[in-house]
Amino acid sequence: MPVKTIQWSEDKLKLIDQTLLPLEYRVLEIIELQDVTEAIKSLRIRGAPAIGIAAAFGIYLGVKDFSGEDSDAFFELLEEVSDQLIKTRPTAVNLRWAVERVKKVAYGESEADMSELKKLILNEALKILEEDRKICRKIGEIGSALLPDEGTGLTHCNAGGLATADYGTALAVIYSAVEKGKKIRVFADETRPLLQGARLTTWELMRAGIDVTLICDNTAGYVMKKGLIDFVIVGADRIAVNGDVANKIGTYSLAILAERHGIPFYVAAPISTIDPRIKDGDSIIIEERAPEEVIESFGKRVAPEGVKVFSPAFDVTPSQLITAIITEAGIFRKIYNFQELFID
Amino acid sequence: MPVKTIQWSEDKLKLIDQTLLPLEYRVLEIIELQDVTEAIKSLRIRGAPAIGIAAAFGIYLGVKDFSGEDSDAFFELLEEVSDQLIKTRPTAVNLRWAVERVKKVAYGESEADMSELKKLILNEALKILEEDRKICRKIGEIGSALLPDEGTGLTHCNAGGLATADYGTALAVIYSAVEKGKKIRVFADETRPLLQGARLTTWELMRAGIDVTLICDNTAGYVMKKGLIDFVIVGADRIAVNGDVANKIGTYSLAILAERHGIPFYVAAPISTIDPRIKDGDSIIIEERAPEEVIESFGKRVAPEGVKVFSPAFDVTPSQLITAIITEAGIFRKIYNFQELFID
Repeated sequence: MPVKTIQWSEDKLKLIDQTLLPLEYRVLEIIELQDVTEAIKSLRIRGAPAIGIAAAFGIYLGVKDFSGEDSDAFFELLEEVSDQLIKTRPTAVNLRWAVERVKKVAYGESEADMSELKKLILNEALKILEEDRKICRKIGEIGSALLPDEGTGLTHCNAGGLATADYGTALAVIYSAVEKGKKIRVFADETRPLLQGARLTTWELMRAGIDVTLICDNTAGYVMKKGLIDFVIVGADRIAVNGDVANKIGTYSLAILAERHGIPFYVAAPISTIDPRIKDGDSIIIEERAPEEVIESFGKRVAPEGVKVFSPAFDVTPSQLITAIITEAGIFRKIYNFQELFID
Repeated sequence: MPVKTIQWSEDKLKLIDQTLLPLEYRVLEIIELQDVTEAIKSLRIRGAPAIGIAAAFGIYLGVKDFSGEDSDAFFELLEEVSDQLIKTRPTAVNLRWAVERVKKVAYGESEADMSELKKLILNEALKILEEDRKICRKIGEIGSALLPDEGTGLTHCNAGGLATADYGTALAVIYSAVEKGKKIRVFADETRPLLQGARLTTWELMRAGIDVTLICDNTAGYVMKKGLIDFVIVGADRIAVNGDVANKIGTYSLAILAERHGIPFYVAAPISTIDPRIKDGDSIIIEERAPEEVIESFGKRVAPEGVKVFSPAFDVTPSQLITAIITEAGIFRKIYNFQELFID
């Protein structure tokens, strides 16, 4: 059973506070836009699909107390709320995708009265949540065919249930393979600086009864050389039309190491991760995070005061290094032309 | 002026406790063997050359209270003390080298009386310390010629003053180049799990006024791809006769990334790091460290209770990935046959 990472009930957005895992399991109950943006910025909720869903509900929370019947003012507020949400994490495209999808519904019914518009917005957010559930299962189902009957996968960051509304993306493939009786073990990169691998991936895999071993990020090359890894599988934060993938910092290095050792390198992500406006990886904006995340994120400072830090949140893996991209619409290999997906 | 990592005065071995840096600067004053072995095991003193020196003094501290004139008993104690020291860190060959060098001197004068033997042992330890100073300078001098007049080097772990009795090995090359007027900036990998890069390398470079930027280990590929790195330079814990290098876990991955980006990859180490008994890297024993170092090193636990962890302390970089090995005896390139160095 997947974790309940993100839920909507009793007019509240309920999120597991992932900054507290694995030491504490606490569910945040959010009723205001500001708490949604704070939760996204602080990575209480993270993972490209999950923050898209959170943002969709964020729009609803941002407009639900609008009073009066001034349509222009309502749409002005809608724009302002949307901007605030999009700015929280500049790399994750699902966030923009979800926000724009919700806006589109509202603009499509711009003659409706305000309470009707609010209802439409909430319904669209609920639809996105429900679709994400189905997409996770579909990605898992499709991707599991690529895995060996018995073997070990290496994953980076957390592209699991905690990154989505259900089974995740990369980890959905693992869950689905295991459900089909394949014997899959996992090595999890701890994923500095915020240790999503150590804190989240190990937690959800152990909870699911899957054999997982934690390694430091810098150990990936060594375990590959020792022949311990049969495949690498990661999620994605944004995919360019040519198949270049932005994902958690360290993914690019992993892809080079995998290629060097002849190990297949898979990316699992929903179609909504593909950004039709981005031709290739060079155009993807890479978010930089605060130095504090590197030098004092876990209770004590680990570097001298005033040290310079460079902490990009993501890197870009060129499509040539990717064996296949697994989506709910099928498996794409080597020659990517995602543009055609967006021709209406 | 280099840091005083390891000193001998007033019949005490004085070591900077590196587990406390950069938050606290404390010098341990050691008068017993047990405290030397503990300091090496706990990484209070670390770095292949420095632990060799510490072990040499450890022998003296282990035998200095021997009383009587029973030569057999003395040499039995010497063997026992040596074994204890060699077992502290199985990968660092300088440790074994220093211990055997001190033993050889004692065995060479086995007819001497006990107080004379003790004096010989102490003198040999002091000689090793003094020689290390000169070796650091020589490595720096020789290696600095390889660096560009202006550029940025990436280093991993700490192969600096804190790893030796003077300027270090990899960092000696940087210090020497800067003294000669070259404009060298440094990116330092934080080096999980014990963060020697974040804690020690940034500390000593900042102290020396050298421009240093801290990155997470998994960011190395990204900074290389962005063109920010002109060379990589690291130390070594053990070098096989064919030029394969055991060094801090993550070095192997860095070497692959450097090769992929066309960046020269240098290793700087004293000749004593070469193990004439080891034909190639496959025969090097890799020390595994305790899971706690990975999951509790930041002051609070960062992974679920009971998680499996794989934490090798070192990896082996094959000589084909190494542009040059810089030693006090000169620069070795590509075709290594260190065996001939050991033909007497």
